Amino acid sequence: MPNRVEPPNWWADMEHSQVEVMLYGEYMGQVDFESDLPIVKVRRTENPNYAFVTLETKGKGPGTYSISYNIYDTYYVLEYELLERNPNSKLRKGFNSSDAIYLIMPDRFANGDPSNDIVDEMAEKSDRSFKGGRHGGDIQGVIDHLDYLEDLGVTALWSTPLLEDNDQRYSYHGYAASDVYRIDPRYGSNESYRELADQMQQRDMKLIMDYVTNHWGATHWMMDDLPTQTWIHQFDDNKDRDFPVAGYANSSYRQTTQLDPYASDRDETYAEKGWFVSSMPDLNQSEPLVLNYLIQNAIWWIEYAGLGGLRVDTYAYNEKEGIAKWTKAIMDEYPNFTIVGETWMHDQAQIAFWQKDSPVAAIQSYNTHLPSVMDFTLHDAVLTAFNEKDQQWDKGMVKVYENFVNDFLYADVNNIMVMAGNHDTNRLSGNGVLDGDLEKFKLAMTLILTTRGIPQIYYGDEIGMAGNRDTVGDGDIRRDFPGGWKGDKINAFTKPTKEQKAYQDFTKKLLNYRKNKEVLHTGKLLHFVPENNCYVYFRHNDKDRVMVIINNNDKPVTLDMSRFKEGFNGATHGTDIIDDSRLPLSGKLVIGAEHSMIIDIE
Amino acid sequence: MPNRVEPPNWWADMEHSQVEVMLYGEYMGQVDFESDLPIVKVRRTENPNYAFVTLETKGKGPGTYSISYNIYDTYYVLEYELLERNPNSKLRKGFNSSDAIYLIMPDRFANGDPSNDIVDEMAEKSDRSFKGGRHGGDIQGVIDHLDYLEDLGVTALWSTPLLEDNDQRYSYHGYAASDVYRIDPRYGSNESYRELADQMQQRDMKLIMDYVTNHWGATHWMMDDLPTQTWIHQFDDNKDRDFPVAGYANSSYRQTTQLDPYASDRDETYAEKGWFVSSMPDLNQSEPLVLNYLIQNAIWWIEYAGLGGLRVDTYAYNEKEGIAKWTKAIMDEYPNFTIVGETWMHDQAQIAFWQKDSPVAAIQSYNTHLPSVMDFTLHDAVLTAFNEKDQQWDKGMVKVYENFVNDFLYADVNNIMVMAGNHDTNRLSGNGVLDGDLEKFKLAMTLILTTRGIPQIYYGDEIGMAGNRDTVGDGDIRRDFPGGWKGDKINAFTKPTKEQKAYQDFTKKLLNYRKNKEVLHTGKLLHFVPENNCYVYFRHNDKDRVMVIINNNDKPVTLDMSRFKEGFNGATHGTDIIDDSRLPLSGKLVIGAEHSMIIDIE
Repeated sequence: MPNRVEPPNWWADMEHSQVEVMLYGEYMGQVDFESDLPIVKVRRTENPNYAFVTLETKGKGPGTYSISYNIYDTYYVLEYELLERNPNSKLRKGFNSSDAIYLIMPDRFANGDPSNDIVDEMAEKSDRSFKGGRHGGDIQGVIDHLDYLEDLGVTALWSTPLLEDNDQRYSYHGYAASDVYRIDPRYGSNESYRELADQMQQRDMKLIMDYVTNHWGATHWMMDDLPTQTWIHQFDDNKDRDFPVAGYANSSYRQTTQLDPYASDRDETYAEKGWFVSSMPDLNQSEPLVLNYLIQNAIWWIEYAGLGGLRVDTYAYNEKEGIAKWTKAIMDEYPNFTIVGETWMHDQAQIAFWQKDSPVAAIQSYNTHLPSVMDFTLHDAVLTAFNEKDQQWDKGMVKVYENFVNDFLYADVNNIMVMAGNHDTNRLSGNGVLDGDLEKFKLAMTLILTTRGIPQIYYGDEIGMAGNRDTVGDGDIRRDFPGGWKGDKINAFTKPTKEQKAYQDFTKKLLNYRKNKEVLHTGKLLHFVPENNCYVYFRHNDKDRVMVIINNNDKPVTLDMSRFKEGFNGATHGTDIIDDSRLPLSGKLVIGAEHSMIIDIE
Repeated sequence: MPNRVEPPNWWADMEHSQVEVMLYGEYMGQVDFESDLPIVKVRRTENPNYAFVTLETKGKGPGTYSISYNIYDTYYVLEYELLERNPNSKLRKGFNSSDAIYLIMPDRFANGDPSNDIVDEMAEKSDRSFKGGRHGGDIQGVIDHLDYLEDLGVTALWSTPLLEDNDQRYSYHGYAASDVYRIDPRYGSNESYRELADQMQQRDMKLIMDYVTNHWGATHWMMDDLPTQTWIHQFDDNKDRDFPVAGYANSSYRQTTQLDPYASDRDETYAEKGWFVSSMPDLNQSEPLVLNYLIQNAIWWIEYAGLGGLRVDTYAYNEKEGIAKWTKAIMDEYPNFTIVGETWMHDQAQIAFWQKDSPVAAIQSYNTHLPSVMDFTLHDAVLTAFNEKDQQWDKGMVKVYENFVNDFLYADVNNIMVMAGNHDTNRLSGNGVLDGDLEKFKLAMTLILTTRGIPQIYYGDEIGMAGNRDTVGDGDIRRDFPGGWKGDKINAFTKPTKEQKAYQDFTKKLLNYRKNKEVLHTGKLLHFVPENNCYVYFRHNDKDRVMVIINNNDKPVTLDMSRFKEGFNGATHGTDIIDDSRLPLSGKLVIGAEHSMIIDIE
């Protein structure tokens, strides 16, 4: 019998009805298959241990079907199940701008099940004393704190990868998968992941899987016995080298070569086909077997766990044509779903390029089909703007304002993820960013939670968690959430310190206000060029209006409200939702130094 | 008789055949006109001193026609001439990427005619001791040095404005015109301007006029007696104020509001309709009389002087629809002409927006019809890149490389003006830019003169002229060219110092190489991500190839030539055109610290 059959099952009534089943084991590439499902084709490779058998499931109901073959005189029958889909599976809605996303690194959030901290079969054991080690957080820890998250006002959860990652070290980040059909046992199990998704669904919250199409880990089981040498990108120049890995060349990380009209083939190759790091073999999506394997794997998880979205790692490092096909296949299966790509570039046109139906990508006759991209240029602005207190031509809030000027380049501005930081950046409240300054934090949160797009906050932001990536390293921006471990001196979930509570209260108030405030989800933006480092904008639709004032000046600023009358649409009063004070929308308004106001217009 | 008739003449066989003649003088708005050219319409305004009489010239040959009217019992007849066009007038070719443009501030270049230094009727007199004053340079001074310019290898001349500017002070810059049908007598006359153009044409050089559509000077004759209050932008709020000018509000200079999908009407108004400075009333191009006046004035100069191009000042400050109509009208008249707009923005998408048939502007259903824009983002990079010697992710030559990545946003990359500085920026060789460092200068010139687009250099660059705008002011980047005035101790035209000569020799060699090197004009660009702060690119077409290496590192860099083999197309040798050495295109090439090579591939 084969060692592996993947996907382990499929579902009836899928758009992707032709499931290509990979059978891996001795002789699998040499036998003839029969099935009570029509066999569309069988692809064999140079490796005799693999067969890829495409079965047609169209018109077939749920049930157990067979795949059979002979090895010498022995007849083998495998059962292959078609499950029944959940009734709303196809038309499920992915996360959108009505959501607020909470990004978790599960190893660092809460240790709900200490029994899985050390798992014999997995190389790396828990070691909380090592910043780059596994700390024991797990899926149960997330489940245990869903009340906290719901209370906080977040409606969606993006967890960094939970799939098995059997690296010797740094495996907690999970971006080097060793088995993409299995949740890492140190986090839980496939069943506990589904349990998390189920419990979230009952709370009307969405679970977003962090999916990696670009690479797997060097410890992925397949690396020992590749189905075909074309499965991963290998560099002929380096094939004879042993160090660090045969066939390896590192990515140049120059994602710009993907758009550059003048790029050399060589630069394109090294950017896109080079490996992210030597422990992450780069997958070749132009190999149809690989592409389909990745499509089916992603669909399998969406269908299996009932996911509310995918976040795709290193999106712009993928092969352009391949990743577009991958994205389209998933969106064809789930037309209302959301996939957001990590588009870590520093130019709006370059980010807009990657969004579905992009007018920018259309210049190159390209279309990713990717619904959502990440606003890294806004993030760039946030990293510095709140420390720039003087009024200058191009500093402070002007940087933020200027980010939105180029919004006309985007195909869909409501579908841009906005964030003040994530697991790969300096901590929002850390050194050099907001420097642990609560007032600056309030300014940044006001911006992120009231501007256009889909806001994402990073676990710990809501308690002012610090950390410095530049000087200390990744581990420092991924500290353990206080209270997530038995014996923690501080439990910020239940008994935050006074300082933590100040962050939490503000975040909670704003998130919960935003939750049901449709105009903040889809309302149009109207903004005013910052003067005196004070940025004023409105979100508005036919029924509702909100005025936001972010005074980044370290002195109070007096606003002549008549300048903003376009935004009032005749209204005369509004209420600051933070301190519940009612105020007139006329005359002069003095806004305190480093203070923001969110005014619900009557 | 009217005080003014404008345009003072027209030509037969013009595309713009309906000439709208402005008649200004007592009663002009109250009389009835007759003409032996068909009168299409007469527009009168609230000011009784103006009439705008549109005459149809289609089908009418060159000759003298009449415009006549009665005032009380007196019958007046004006002669109005239709001149014969030069045979190639309509199809004249504007400057393009085969040209190299030399930007002159004529007041500071050479004083060819000291007799016009002081002109009684003009307010400001020559005063060489004042950095912001008039220094006496003139058109004759330019004519006198055409040999020098031709030798240097430039093929086109952009002079800052020469029209009458009767401001009390700072009139030398010429951007505040007091009469747009007259060359300032301190520069010469309409005839001497035409003489300059003629002499240039004989040398196959092109004269580019610096045209200002956005504003005139406060001393413009019309300001004392506006044809209509809508002629200039006036702000109701400020109409009662006397200071500095009634009806004046300053521009916010936020050109971004022109593209911003979220801009408030108020911000758009203050950016576009606000005055550039209080001495420059902002023209209202949505007033058809103004628009047509500006169209006819520009055509008049092109036709009168036989111009080879226009450079349009503050292009992005103009009213969007108006400036597009203006540009189109001129391009309809001269379909092969070139107009380049000053598009001083800091983002490629925002610059690309302003070019004809821009895919970026198409997102907003807008089209300027402007053939050429200015690469201010490359200029931004040049200002700092050559002082960044360490290899860093996003510094040094990477900044330059990254500028070109976004070239796919441009409709026409060969029609982008590239420059290392102009009359409004810090001097290329000045403090903080290249710091008077000859080697850095060579790197910058290599880039500007071999990359795609239309290169422009600024007078004095070719002798390493210094100057600092930030710390000293505009006057310092507009120093007198040594040798342009009788008695100058150094004459850099004829006897440059050793140091000046080093700059001049390099510039001259490169300009003259570029002159007949078609592949540098229109060849495709192929470039490689900089490594070790060393940037390598090729210009290539079916027949020819040039390899450019710019080593901005302060140490020698060893290049493995096999990395660039795509660029060689099988060739094995090339010649460095600077030192005439032949070298193989294989193995290792060591390029010296801060050194560039331009390799003509065999």
